[in-house]
Amino acid sequence: MLNFEVINPTRIVFGKEQLNRLPELVGEFSPSKKIMLAYGGGSIEKTGLLTNLLNALAGFEVVLFGGIEANPQYATLMKGVALAQEKQIDFMLAVGGGSVIDGVKFMTGAFYYEGEAWDVLDRKPGCDFLKAVPFGTVLTLPATGSEANSGAVISRAETKEKRAMGGPLFFPKFSFCDPSLIATLPKRQLANGITDAFMHTLEQYITYPTDNLLQERQAEGILLTLIEIAEKVIENPADYRLASNLMWSATHALNGNLRCGVPTDWGTHMIGHELTAIYGIDHARTLAIIAPRLYENQFETKKEKLAQYGKRVWNLTGSDEEIAHEAIRQTEAFFNRLGIETKIHNYSTDTDSIATEIKKRFEDRSWLTMGERGAITPTHVAQIVTAAI
Amino acid sequence: MLNFEVINPTRIVFGKEQLNRLPELVGEFSPSKKIMLAYGGGSIEKTGLLTNLLNALAGFEVVLFGGIEANPQYATLMKGVALAQEKQIDFMLAVGGGSVIDGVKFMTGAFYYEGEAWDVLDRKPGCDFLKAVPFGTVLTLPATGSEANSGAVISRAETKEKRAMGGPLFFPKFSFCDPSLIATLPKRQLANGITDAFMHTLEQYITYPTDNLLQERQAEGILLTLIEIAEKVIENPADYRLASNLMWSATHALNGNLRCGVPTDWGTHMIGHELTAIYGIDHARTLAIIAPRLYENQFETKKEKLAQYGKRVWNLTGSDEEIAHEAIRQTEAFFNRLGIETKIHNYSTDTDSIATEIKKRFEDRSWLTMGERGAITPTHVAQIVTAAI
Repeated sequence: MLNFEVINPTRIVFGKEQLNRLPELVGEFSPSKKIMLAYGGGSIEKTGLLTNLLNALAGFEVVLFGGIEANPQYATLMKGVALAQEKQIDFMLAVGGGSVIDGVKFMTGAFYYEGEAWDVLDRKPGCDFLKAVPFGTVLTLPATGSEANSGAVISRAETKEKRAMGGPLFFPKFSFCDPSLIATLPKRQLANGITDAFMHTLEQYITYPTDNLLQERQAEGILLTLIEIAEKVIENPADYRLASNLMWSATHALNGNLRCGVPTDWGTHMIGHELTAIYGIDHARTLAIIAPRLYENQFETKKEKLAQYGKRVWNLTGSDEEIAHEAIRQTEAFFNRLGIETKIHNYSTDTDSIATEIKKRFEDRSWLTMGERGAITPTHVAQIVTAAI
Repeated sequence: MLNFEVINPTRIVFGKEQLNRLPELVGEFSPSKKIMLAYGGGSIEKTGLLTNLLNALAGFEVVLFGGIEANPQYATLMKGVALAQEKQIDFMLAVGGGSVIDGVKFMTGAFYYEGEAWDVLDRKPGCDFLKAVPFGTVLTLPATGSEANSGAVISRAETKEKRAMGGPLFFPKFSFCDPSLIATLPKRQLANGITDAFMHTLEQYITYPTDNLLQERQAEGILLTLIEIAEKVIENPADYRLASNLMWSATHALNGNLRCGVPTDWGTHMIGHELTAIYGIDHARTLAIIAPRLYENQFETKKEKLAQYGKRVWNLTGSDEEIAHEAIRQTEAFFNRLGIETKIHNYSTDTDSIATEIKKRFEDRSWLTMGERGAITPTHVAQIVTAAI
């Protein structure tokens, strides 16, 4: 087991009809009682959630900031930062899925940052967020785990860039996770959420053999649970039994626990981010496109864990080599069953220069390492992307 | 899934040779740089750990308080409280296993309490700890999970009482978990630690069927891991692979995660506490004595979960009823293989009035409920204890 340090101070309030806890928890962090409530495209207006939240927060002055898009955009978020500064709020409440929560994480840091905040995302030397506005979340879409971690991913449309940020300042103070809120989600978003959680788990599991017996069981537990419920919850998200297991699994897939003591990959995410930046493909779908091809490309270094995964999660039999290959096929077939297409040409025909383009993007960031041994090079990236077309 | 709220702000520093992090972490919570280092029977003096800690803490004034016993005693701890008050320390460091850590949790609350601190443990109306000294831990014995939770159990020899306490004030600020420290532990303590962690998991798992798919997988993951390593780590605790998996499993068995959204029992613990209070039997051994008999006594309400446990953890086949019974036998045989005897007469011959005595102790605390449905009555307790003689 590798040495590790882990802390996760986010309070999770999980379940139905818990909003009566909201004023107390917000009040703990907002002496001025002036807060910003940030959200996405307006579905929370239609479902009545916004009204319920505003009723619960009757004792607060609430500045609304809607319109945070999927793959939250730097330009949008900087408008939110300006509004928050103008209104002198001292707390932010993110209401939405991973994009809204990620966007709020960025805004809480940019609120106090005096230079160009993109420099922090671009890891320009000497640029960092040193202070952040406290924030909480109300989760409406189980997927990214952002409600229970301190990471975020922010995009910039004009340069087609996507950058990760994070750190101890960016843990939510609390997160309300109410599975009944997913009852009205479109099938597409549910399938994406399941895929995202599944891939978060695989990124921390399909590496090389280690002696992390418990962590492997924990990862397998999430995968088995997601497989058990996936197709059913897409059909019937109003089934609280299914919804609650999906929501709790997605939180656990990226709350910092699975990574403890183990090597991690994240190559699929990094290559996938480029597909989103260039084509606008949904994040989860980019993972489903890249992962099978990356596992084939890196088969030699990953085959033992692929075989363990095939046996314990897919109940496969045969030689380890056969099982490992079949586990990749089963994974892709699982995504396909959820309605997720796993080739780039399913999303765009403009693929002639894509492998070269993405390869160059990784060559330009020589500080970035990928794969559990740092062994995925830009040349591998080009091979993986080519195979994924 | 039941509604729940969970938070665990303890920072875990896990691994070998991490003590260089100690001064920074202690310094964060000790402005005065005057701290108390509390420990147990002196093994940390023999192993050199105390010297290493004092070297790491060279920049601090360290008040030593040794002699905290297994099942930490109120009278002992109140001496520590008086010493801490006299020396005006502002931080405590618990170095040891669950008894030392539990003892320190109590001392941090009693430090500020003006009345008789036992009243708090005895839940006397209006008596509570409202403030506590911050504290951290250096774990030397994987067992209780106290390093990653906010609970403690304190004993009083003169009245043969044992009482639980806890609450948000009593999370360690940090815990150093170094698996290499268990290399010199006696077999008896290792067997006890494994049994304790195993039973913490079962108390949160062997209840009635629920729809907590992930939590069940997580519990089963701990049980499978403990079974895989138990006999080997007792033989060879210097094997870091085994030691690290034991330590991490014991932490996870009681870090607050398994209880999320599920019914829990804790009847075995409550009855077991009485066996420790009366006979001085090691805590873990009382659990191994009581659990099989409690599961037999409460078979009808627990048989579905016992069957799931038998299938997934012990790979049993047959009818569910047969599997459920066999799972109880396998559990008892597992404890026996670790060298743990599972009958009261293995520990004392003075058993004539024990069932009546323990029954009365529960009758005297009518506010106390036991079992996942609150259905274990003092009469059941007498039956369980009688069967355990």
